[in-house]
Amino acid sequence: MIAELSLPVRYAETDAMSVVHHSNYIIWFEAGRVEFMRRAGIPYDEVERSGIYLTVSEVHARYLASARFGDTVVVRTRLSELRSRGVRFDYEVIGNAGKLLVDGYTRHICIDHSGNVARIPEPLLAQLRAIDGAG
Amino acid sequence: MIAELSLPVRYAETDAMSVVHHSNYIIWFEAGRVEFMRRAGIPYDEVERSGIYLTVSEVHARYLASARFGDTVVVRTRLSELRSRGVRFDYEVIGNAGKLLVDGYTRHICIDHSGNVARIPEPLLAQLRAIDGAG
Amino acid sequence: MIAELSLPVRYAETDAMSVVHHSNYIIWFEAGRVEFMRRAGIPYDEVERSGIYLTVSEVHARYLASARFGDTVVVRTRLSELRSRGVRFDYEVIGNAGKLLVDGYTRHICIDHSGNVARIPEPLLAQLRAIDGAG
Amino acid sequence: MIAELSLPVRYAETDAMSVVHHSNYIIWFEAGRVEFMRRAGIPYDEVERSGIYLTVSEVHARYLASARFGDTVVVRTRLSELRSRGVRFDYEVIGNAGKLLVDGYTRHICIDHSGNVARIPEPLLAQLRAIDGAG
Repeated sequence: MIAELSLPVRYAETDAMSVVHHSNYIIWFEAGRVEFMRRAGIPYDEVERSGIYLTVSEVHARYLASARFGDTVVVRTRLSELRSRGVRFDYEVIGNAGKLLVDGYTRHICIDHSGNVARIPEPLLAQLRAIDGAG
Repeated sequence: MIAELSLPVRYAETDAMSVVHHSNYIIWFEAGRVEFMRRAGIPYDEVERSGIYLTVSEVHARYLASARFGDTVVVRTRLSELRSRGVRFDYEVIGNAGKLLVDGYTRHICIDHSGNVARIPEPLLAQLRAIDGAG
Repeated sequence: MIAELSLPVRYAETDAMSVVHHSNYIIWFEAGRVEFMRRAGIPYDEVERSGIYLTVSEVHARYLASARFGDTVVVRTRLSELRSRGVRFDYEVIGNAGKLLVDGYTRHICIDHSGNVARIPEPLLAQLRAIDGAG
Repeated sequence: MIAELSLPVRYAETDAMSVVHHSNYIIWFEAGRVEFMRRAGIPYDEVERSGIYLTVSEVHARYLASARFGDTVVVRTRLSELRSRGVRFDYEVIGNAGKLLVDGYTRHICIDHSGNVARIPEPLLAQLRAIDGAG
């Protein structure tokens, strides 16, 4: 499964180079994986309410082209790795005319409410495994 | 007491007009009042750890001139009102050559850990009252 | 005309009180008025490309209740004042179950490319005047 | 040369996990390299005014531990690679008691005012080469 999320560029997301500031793509990656989880039937706010957090342990992004105010970008998110204690998501941010602007990934570690690394609980792991194309 | 806080403009804070985006002054107001509380000997993180929150109930800002990347601004903060259940802070953001860029205020309501409006606890109220020039 | 814009709360928009940080409503106001202009047939990126900016001169917000991650808010925007050199927009941010979370307004001054205050050009003024319920 | 920059955590930088949201470290990296350039005698705003941009082409960060509101972090920045058309900076973000919170790097490509990849102009290249420990 690849989840697509459309985001109109916010003026606040631009910078003095008249393009979207690079830090915002990291926030868009997050919006992308929240949408991915929602479509997979595992809303991330419910995951957290169950006492489990998929905290970010690594972020990587390559910037190939720029988005500007007035553009609407599409964030394409997929689950690219699934382990007993962590996951990896891959992202592509697509701009006008289907141009690839940014790609990247994030790694996440499962932690419990006290902040300790934990195994992803079996029901959640099963739901993630069932996603088409997972890991 | 007026607390002054120097902040170099971050590139991420600029927008496509090549000036600081207006939303960042609201964040600078917050940095200003955190500095105010620190100088008053009442660090806000300690206030929160005591179970009390001074949550924002109102924000007002007037934008008179712009800051740019490369500038360092000064946020001048004072406690302008003190009531049993809330406070008001006033702000001035000063740019290069002492120019007033933005002024404004925020109002805050005291709430307890369960989110209910509460009286400001007497020790904290006394500390706030003792600040020179308070409300 | 009242323009409604739906925004799922981003995790990045929350703060340590587990609610949306107050500065983000100012950014949502902006997203709301961009949506308003788009629906009015006057996309703001086109306004800027014509050499005119509606720069923010004043922001006001009252915070009545909180949004959280997992919520989707609706920003309701209307043009509440129209003058030869400026406009005012009013906003309501509505949360779950139709609850009013935040209301506020922004004032804007028309400036030209060199940063001088200017009259809103007649074609744009006419378009704004034609909006149902304008000022 | 390693440039150190002290940053008190802003409340707006925290998220609902009560720690600094991971996207802010990317903004802190930027503040770190701006400080690096300033100490190297090449303020980045002057570089831009000369018509040259060191645009971000890649970002990488590993998250090892968390910062919280009330903490002051130190960003340690060094120039780790210097090429005719680009540079790389490495970062460490240090928290309380000297704990390494996050490390990472950014790559930058030199572009001119029209957005084309360009050689770093010889005077700037010489200044960068002269930095102790550069690439």
